[in-house]
Amino acid sequence: MGTTQLETVPEPKYWHLKTVLSEALDSEFSVGEILPNERDLAARFGVARATLRQALEQLELEGRLQRRRGVGTTVAPPRVGVAVAPARPTWPGAAGDDWQPVDAVETDTVPAAVARLLETAAGDRVYLVRRSRVTQGQPLAAESLYVPVAALPGRLEAGVLNGPAGAYAVLGELQSLELDGQDRTVELGSARAEDAKQLDRLPGAPVLVVTTRYVSGGRTTAVAVSTYRADTCRLTFGDSDAVALLAG
Amino acid sequence: MGTTQLETVPEPKYWHLKTVLSEALDSEFSVGEILPNERDLAARFGVARATLRQALEQLELEGRLQRRRGVGTTVAPPRVGVAVAPARPTWPGAAGDDWQPVDAVETDTVPAAVARLLETAAGDRVYLVRRSRVTQGQPLAAESLYVPVAALPGRLEAGVLNGPAGAYAVLGELQSLELDGQDRTVELGSARAEDAKQLDRLPGAPVLVVTTRYVSGGRTTAVAVSTYRADTCRLTFGDSDAVALLAG
Repeated sequence: MGTTQLETVPEPKYWHLKTVLSEALDSEFSVGEILPNERDLAARFGVARATLRQALEQLELEGRLQRRRGVGTTVAPPRVGVAVAPARPTWPGAAGDDWQPVDAVETDTVPAAVARLLETAAGDRVYLVRRSRVTQGQPLAAESLYVPVAALPGRLEAGVLNGPAGAYAVLGELQSLELDGQDRTVELGSARAEDAKQLDRLPGAPVLVVTTRYVSGGRTTAVAVSTYRADTCRLTFGDSDAVALLAG
Repeated sequence: MGTTQLETVPEPKYWHLKTVLSEALDSEFSVGEILPNERDLAARFGVARATLRQALEQLELEGRLQRRRGVGTTVAPPRVGVAVAPARPTWPGAAGDDWQPVDAVETDTVPAAVARLLETAAGDRVYLVRRSRVTQGQPLAAESLYVPVAALPGRLEAGVLNGPAGAYAVLGELQSLELDGQDRTVELGSARAEDAKQLDRLPGAPVLVVTTRYVSGGRTTAVAVSTYRADTCRLTFGDSDAVALLAG
């Protein structure tokens, strides 16, 4: 596996510091507490500020710390478990769905990866529905749902496509179709400017991108790109009945 | 949602650069090609090196670039789709499983999060099975599977627990139990030193951590912590029959 080179590399300094800091977080700090500033921390642990910053970044990746502008670095609460896949396939907007419709537009601007899944050509019109998922006042996720105009039985007037009501109109049309199946992919991404705003983060913040493909009548009828905050969310999948019983 | 403050912040410089760089990657570079060094790139785009580095980090998060020690920054191939959840619950090591057993040990050192799921107490003995997942010679994922010694019908001798044969012995014992269900969580993490070595990355590299809980006889009988390279992997879930047909 070509690890020979790695084996001879000593453990990086920030890595050791991360372990030490992690223990300090457990023993000396409580959730929400603000950490001392970088200069003081670097002095306390006897490291360069660059090393300290690398260790703090690691702890942020692991969800132990949160950096908030205007506040500083705080000890993060445990990540929130967010159910991503319903027990059986359902259209977005079905009963029990946790998403709030924000708005809808008709457009021909579709990300290349989504166009490939939908098999749309350049210039094809799609509805773009924006939704958001919020828990206890905290934004968790932002979603862009793409549905080719040609895939829906009825054409929605431009006047209808406005605000949450427009989003409901597109979702309502989807419910009238038979859903044959869906699949999902999860990957690491960085928040696009628009999603970042909805998530109360800066553009480029690490996010978990869940792409859901909805299949109806032998073709992909809708694609949802859902962007979850990687700092606060843990995505949960496939709660079988046995496991649900355990958790209860 | 508290976005007022964000709305007044202009788009960060690295974010604009990222978009420009991304377009340059599409039009001027091919997969595997090595990018010019940071100094030349910064000069070409008229930005400070710190800004350039932030933009490169973004593109790395998005899977567009790979940084390889001794090689430099290269244009990444598309991420590999890796099936994470089998269609119906199966024990690790069941037929069709894509993991290679590496070794097994008996230990009482269990990460706190795993101990909580297994409901083990301090000092309880567990088998720790290490496995790896490789595609076309590339390491994709490393796994630590924890099984309380008391959960298995037979006790394995220390002499058996060695190398891949030891791992097979533990997995074999698991197959003799009834599996009631399983669930999974996915979250962002940073590679621990041992996983990093198996994944041919440096400690702290961003990884997708999949935690699978196996339930048998009304209790959690095994917990697998699987660490996937976030730069090269896209996790896939729940390929329904309808979707499999589409992909075929």
